[in-house]
Amino acid sequence: MTRVADIGEFPFIARLAQHLPPYAPDVVEGVGDDVAVIRLDVGRLLLLTCDIQVSGVHFLPDVITPYQLGHKVAAINLSDIGAMGGRPLHFLFSLGLPPETRVEDMEAMYDGIRDECAPLGVDVVGGNVSRAPVLIVDASLIGEVAEDKLLRRKGARPGDCVLVTGSLGASRAGLELVLHRERAQQLSGDVSDAALAAHLTPRPRVREGQIIAACGGATAMIDVSDGLAADLGHICDLSGVGVRIFAQDVPVANAARKIAPTVGADPLAWALGGGEDYELCFTAQPNRVQALTEAVHRATGTSVHVIGQVLPQEAGRWLHLPNGSEMPLASTGWDHFRIA
Amino acid sequence: MTRVADIGEFPFIARLAQHLPPYAPDVVEGVGDDVAVIRLDVGRLLLLTCDIQVSGVHFLPDVITPYQLGHKVAAINLSDIGAMGGRPLHFLFSLGLPPETRVEDMEAMYDGIRDECAPLGVDVVGGNVSRAPVLIVDASLIGEVAEDKLLRRKGARPGDCVLVTGSLGASRAGLELVLHRERAQQLSGDVSDAALAAHLTPRPRVREGQIIAACGGATAMIDVSDGLAADLGHICDLSGVGVRIFAQDVPVANAARKIAPTVGADPLAWALGGGEDYELCFTAQPNRVQALTEAVHRATGTSVHVIGQVLPQEAGRWLHLPNGSEMPLASTGWDHFRIA
Repeated sequence: MTRVADIGEFPFIARLAQHLPPYAPDVVEGVGDDVAVIRLDVGRLLLLTCDIQVSGVHFLPDVITPYQLGHKVAAINLSDIGAMGGRPLHFLFSLGLPPETRVEDMEAMYDGIRDECAPLGVDVVGGNVSRAPVLIVDASLIGEVAEDKLLRRKGARPGDCVLVTGSLGASRAGLELVLHRERAQQLSGDVSDAALAAHLTPRPRVREGQIIAACGGATAMIDVSDGLAADLGHICDLSGVGVRIFAQDVPVANAARKIAPTVGADPLAWALGGGEDYELCFTAQPNRVQALTEAVHRATGTSVHVIGQVLPQEAGRWLHLPNGSEMPLASTGWDHFRIA
Repeated sequence: MTRVADIGEFPFIARLAQHLPPYAPDVVEGVGDDVAVIRLDVGRLLLLTCDIQVSGVHFLPDVITPYQLGHKVAAINLSDIGAMGGRPLHFLFSLGLPPETRVEDMEAMYDGIRDECAPLGVDVVGGNVSRAPVLIVDASLIGEVAEDKLLRRKGARPGDCVLVTGSLGASRAGLELVLHRERAQQLSGDVSDAALAAHLTPRPRVREGQIIAACGGATAMIDVSDGLAADLGHICDLSGVGVRIFAQDVPVANAARKIAPTVGADPLAWALGGGEDYELCFTAQPNRVQALTEAVHRATGTSVHVIGQVLPQEAGRWLHLPNGSEMPLASTGWDHFRIA
């Protein structure tokens, strides 16, 4: 007898994967990625993803408003579709909730969902509601992508550059303020607002993902949900490659630079391991880096940074420090069962 | 301030529906049905459904094995797609579970899912796993249907016949045995086995639904999940019609006939209100009834019964009793919040 907590999330999923029915011929990508890929027609792919958010596990109802929660649950799934270069289309929401839940709170949550979805032309076409001991929101999202635009975790090749959009670590900084509200008072309003917004209402890089996929030259992509090191590790695992990240090139968010030292933490550690930034990490052929960077910035205003290079698998995974030394790039990502 | 329990499931959903983003042009059917319908191409529709099952609310872990639970969560969703005449294709599963959950139990649940899916050519292409206070299984299923084969809740017309597949009330009889195990010992093994199987591992009428849709002449369809009277009420609501059901023509399951009297219950009440039978209730033009009935029986062995007639809306909803009297057909369906 083995408990799920004994083996952790990813080995547990691998065990379940041994008990699946066979895939139909139209399945391009099944269990193992955040998004399943189904062939609809020649050249046309359907994308399917889901994500369950549980009160007390993924969010604390005392520190996130229902409206912010709606924004966030939508954003998490939109980000997954964006990270494949796809166009998100239609949501379903399953709600589990205690009978004493306030209707007004759920209406506010749906307002947050609506305000996140409407600018992208995404709608909510169905769902399901049930009693449950705590609030649970399970979102399913379908999207679409042209087959020649699809970006996956596999595809990175030695010699490719590693790039990331925006900046990293602000969500982890926001978590710090959410858990210790008194700290926000010692900071400038701009810094605490940016940190809280990054954590509570992250903006998924959907347009950026579509532009990266359309521009040509990108070889693999993922969104930064577990933390840059862990998510880049998924690209390495699936692509069969190694990587070297240059610490001085990692775009550490200003909020992380300001807030991490106040609690004795390293801003770079937050940028590499914090998670929930929902930036895009991708690999690209070196001769396409400039065009990619300019295309994203021109269309969206979002900056793109080269932070490292893809290595052969046997070369390993390294973090290059400013003093010239190297340390292993540890995937200290979030495991839903091992890390409480 | 209003609690969800104060207003109940359907008014709550109606409140949330006021807070949705606008529908995209490809949405044929959005929130309000069990299944959303999206136009993929000319004549080709995508079907999307989801259903959340919560331990202690929808199932009791003491009385359903993990294998049976897997069968049932798959069946519930397959039934929803079948009830539109559709072909189910791909599942996603979100699991919420306590860390002490046994891996072997979850493997057995997936075996049940596999054994329900594989004969229909349905696969599991993704999912998501998280900690939660109790076991929660949220299934999302996509399917497909040709536009001219789609059957919905709306479409019934006065003069149509009302039909139902198989028999009704066995699942309610099985629930009785599940809650009071000692009662099973006073029954023949055949009766208790049939009742328990109907409740714990219902067989969705997917093939039957496809045949009904393909045969021509059916005008509206729904699966019997809330109870025949309630589900037929959904057809009446959406189609804008009334109905008369003839009590003596309702196919009451043998298990209900045998078990209801032992607890002072009316087998007909179980057939009309019990729910979770996952039979198909549909309406059809009278001149197509014989062809429909024969086509379903020939292909699947499943019987089909004419149980009533569709009336104009203003004629109301009636149950015709064998003594010639009539009583209102009460929709004593399951509400997740009002009835505990």
